[in-house]
Amino acid sequence: MASPVEFELTKEFRDLFQRAIDEKDDAFIRRSLEHVNPADISALLYEFSADEGKWVLDLLPPDIQSEVVNHLDPDIRKRNLAVYPPEAIASFLNRLQSDDTADILHELPVKIREEILASLDPELRGQVTELLRYEPHVAGGLMEKELIKARIHWSVVRCVEEIRKQAENVHKFYQVYVVDENDQLLGKVALQDLIISDARKLVADIYEADIVSVQTYQEQDDVVGIMKKYDLESVPVVNVQNQLVGRITIDDIVDVITEQAEEERQIMAGITEDIEEDDSVWRNTRARLPWLVIGIIGGLLNARFMGLFEAELSRVAAIAFFIPLIQATGGNVGIQSSSLIVQSLGNTAFVDVGLWKRLGRVFSVALLNGFVLATLVIVLNILLFDEVRLSMVVSIALFSVIVFASLVGTITPLLLNRVGLNPALASGPFITTTNDLLGLTIYFLTVHIML
Amino acid sequence: MASPVEFELTKEFRDLFQRAIDEKDDAFIRRSLEHVNPADISALLYEFSADEGKWVLDLLPPDIQSEVVNHLDPDIRKRNLAVYPPEAIASFLNRLQSDDTADILHELPVKIREEILASLDPELRGQVTELLRYEPHVAGGLMEKELIKARIHWSVVRCVEEIRKQAENVHKFYQVYVVDENDQLLGKVALQDLIISDARKLVADIYEADIVSVQTYQEQDDVVGIMKKYDLESVPVVNVQNQLVGRITIDDIVDVITEQAEEERQIMAGITEDIEEDDSVWRNTRARLPWLVIGIIGGLLNARFMGLFEAELSRVAAIAFFIPLIQATGGNVGIQSSSLIVQSLGNTAFVDVGLWKRLGRVFSVALLNGFVLATLVIVLNILLFDEVRLSMVVSIALFSVIVFASLVGTITPLLLNRVGLNPALASGPFITTTNDLLGLTIYFLTVHIML
Repeated sequence: MASPVEFELTKEFRDLFQRAIDEKDDAFIRRSLEHVNPADISALLYEFSADEGKWVLDLLPPDIQSEVVNHLDPDIRKRNLAVYPPEAIASFLNRLQSDDTADILHELPVKIREEILASLDPELRGQVTELLRYEPHVAGGLMEKELIKARIHWSVVRCVEEIRKQAENVHKFYQVYVVDENDQLLGKVALQDLIISDARKLVADIYEADIVSVQTYQEQDDVVGIMKKYDLESVPVVNVQNQLVGRITIDDIVDVITEQAEEERQIMAGITEDIEEDDSVWRNTRARLPWLVIGIIGGLLNARFMGLFEAELSRVAAIAFFIPLIQATGGNVGIQSSSLIVQSLGNTAFVDVGLWKRLGRVFSVALLNGFVLATLVIVLNILLFDEVRLSMVVSIALFSVIVFASLVGTITPLLLNRVGLNPALASGPFITTTNDLLGLTIYFLTVHIML
Repeated sequence: MASPVEFELTKEFRDLFQRAIDEKDDAFIRRSLEHVNPADISALLYEFSADEGKWVLDLLPPDIQSEVVNHLDPDIRKRNLAVYPPEAIASFLNRLQSDDTADILHELPVKIREEILASLDPELRGQVTELLRYEPHVAGGLMEKELIKARIHWSVVRCVEEIRKQAENVHKFYQVYVVDENDQLLGKVALQDLIISDARKLVADIYEADIVSVQTYQEQDDVVGIMKKYDLESVPVVNVQNQLVGRITIDDIVDVITEQAEEERQIMAGITEDIEEDDSVWRNTRARLPWLVIGIIGGLLNARFMGLFEAELSRVAAIAFFIPLIQATGGNVGIQSSSLIVQSLGNTAFVDVGLWKRLGRVFSVALLNGFVLATLVIVLNILLFDEVRLSMVVSIALFSVIVFASLVGTITPLLLNRVGLNPALASGPFITTTNDLLGLTIYFLTVHIML
């Protein structure tokens, strides 16, 4: 019977566990964590202090310790590792893959990083030192050094023997990469093909030469796109000489995709740092303030601008009634437009349609939306407010705002993308603030001319 | 030398290819698509009509045809398959995995679906008929029937022989699932362990009993969470009797994650259908209008509400100047709050902190933000506008709006989640419209009381 490794972290269990820690009931701690997946133990440690976490961790077998450390969230890991000396951290890392080790070292202060590096096993130290040279957002920074490779002239039997030797250091692999004498990547053999192949054959007979690889310097977005498009579970990484230097596995790519989605959400919501709801009040405040201040400055500019039309406003107070309508619609249209552009920039599979064709389509959609909404507003306005002339002004302004906000919402993310910024910025408070001012300008100009 | 299967779809190549189709230059088409990955051929077909696509597809080897059909975007696939008779579609599907076949059948009209089913190979028909019973968003709807299983009492040699037999139908696998006589899941053997194990051993000696599985009825969000947490490349699916009925592979989960991120972006941007920028003008308009209309109605309610304060507005026109400031800040704060909740709802690993503790923290952040911004505004206002009394009113209203918008932004996604709706709805135009009205109410009440 497969044991139920799925584990639910309930409040009751947390409280029981807290008591066990307080009472140093090591037997309970050991027993209740037996057969629990390290990822779940990591989640449990979020609930306790670094010292309590150390107490728990010290009771676990070394392999599990390393995996638990590996699964911790970077913030929590930093806090929890702070109570260990560098040698102890090195002994956790000695049992991890090179990419995980490099990621964890990246999080630590340089001095501690160097001390830990000095205590690592020489082989891992060499691998990690190489990985630390790469930026975290390129293929070289995502890859791990652990992989299985075979020479093209080997027999299948020799290949299996070598796998037996190499497999100790590589925790999961599904294919063997085939290289020549100079370590140049030639192709791969899937394990499933190796298992069913005749032992007397050569690697050269059974390998697949059609293999997708990435270069160490390729951006992580490219790597994500390639692995998604070709449904890959891992991709070999080569240097400029086409020599095999590492591999990237899909679990790291899933993490990248998840982080990018979170980052985009935070940008769209106007949050500047990577925070979580349960971070401290101060961190939460600091991450939110910058965009709020920009909004405030935009609001004051709005106020300043409206001051120019004080005479009109005093004469017809009803002009003010429709400011929220104009601004909200401009904001909504702008965000709709920009988010569609952000989405299409993410799908790199298409031939770029060209700016003018794109703007043409956006313009048509805006005209159609603008026409429908302007008609709706004029009808409702006349019914509700009985002011025909002002209703006309509002509808004309609304129509213009929709068209302009569509264009701004389309062009801004394209520009941001061109200069290397995240185009999702255009879906955040930035475009809303701009569109607020734009809407107000259009509205008051229309009022000024027509009323 | 590994052949360069990466393929860049340029405008030049598209035009060349178009000419080859027009001139029925089959030799060029065949030659230029040789060694091109089916995923890239699919991307190329987006550029041509269904009839042109058929011309190209018919020139390809059957295996490639099926893979190309499988990689097409659902919209394009529907259009392109419409020019084929059901038997031809069945012959494409006969070479695909059961889950891909079921997904494609799901997209087609019921009548055609039935005709295709009738023409499928009997084994695939049986598998697909079973899969079609499940909703697409549960584990049963995500899984494929193809997998490799071994009985626990088999020897390693027997296991390898059986893999040789079963492997024909399973295109990629990395582990063998171990079952008992009743097909109940007992554990797994990783291929890498099988390769290096002594041939005289039994499956019972080398299998791992600690295996994570999912139930057919589990929601896709659960499956995503489990595969991410445990870094799985595939997960076995069991029915309520714990019998192995299928497996879910990571590429399907990557697709789910990507779709969910797109869906959330569209919800946040106030777009109701799953559209892409290059969809037709009419579809684009239809997807955008609903939320714009809601915004318009909100805007008219704003106008109506302000009408109640016409006397105040006529007396002090400057009151109107600060409406954008108040509303923009309320909107920004609301979206910041709700998107943090949406993010934390996505991380299921934590013990729920409880509503009151959550609101307490949100309230503290709001007080701090509100205090900083209200101070900023009063200082700038006095400098810029020289109206101390109105500046006081604006700052007090701003402070209240920040606090209320934070609470609304926090509670709304929690409520939506509770009733089974996507909490991201709270980050869309919905909360902006509500917050606009809320902000205006607070502002004018403050004006009414204090001015």
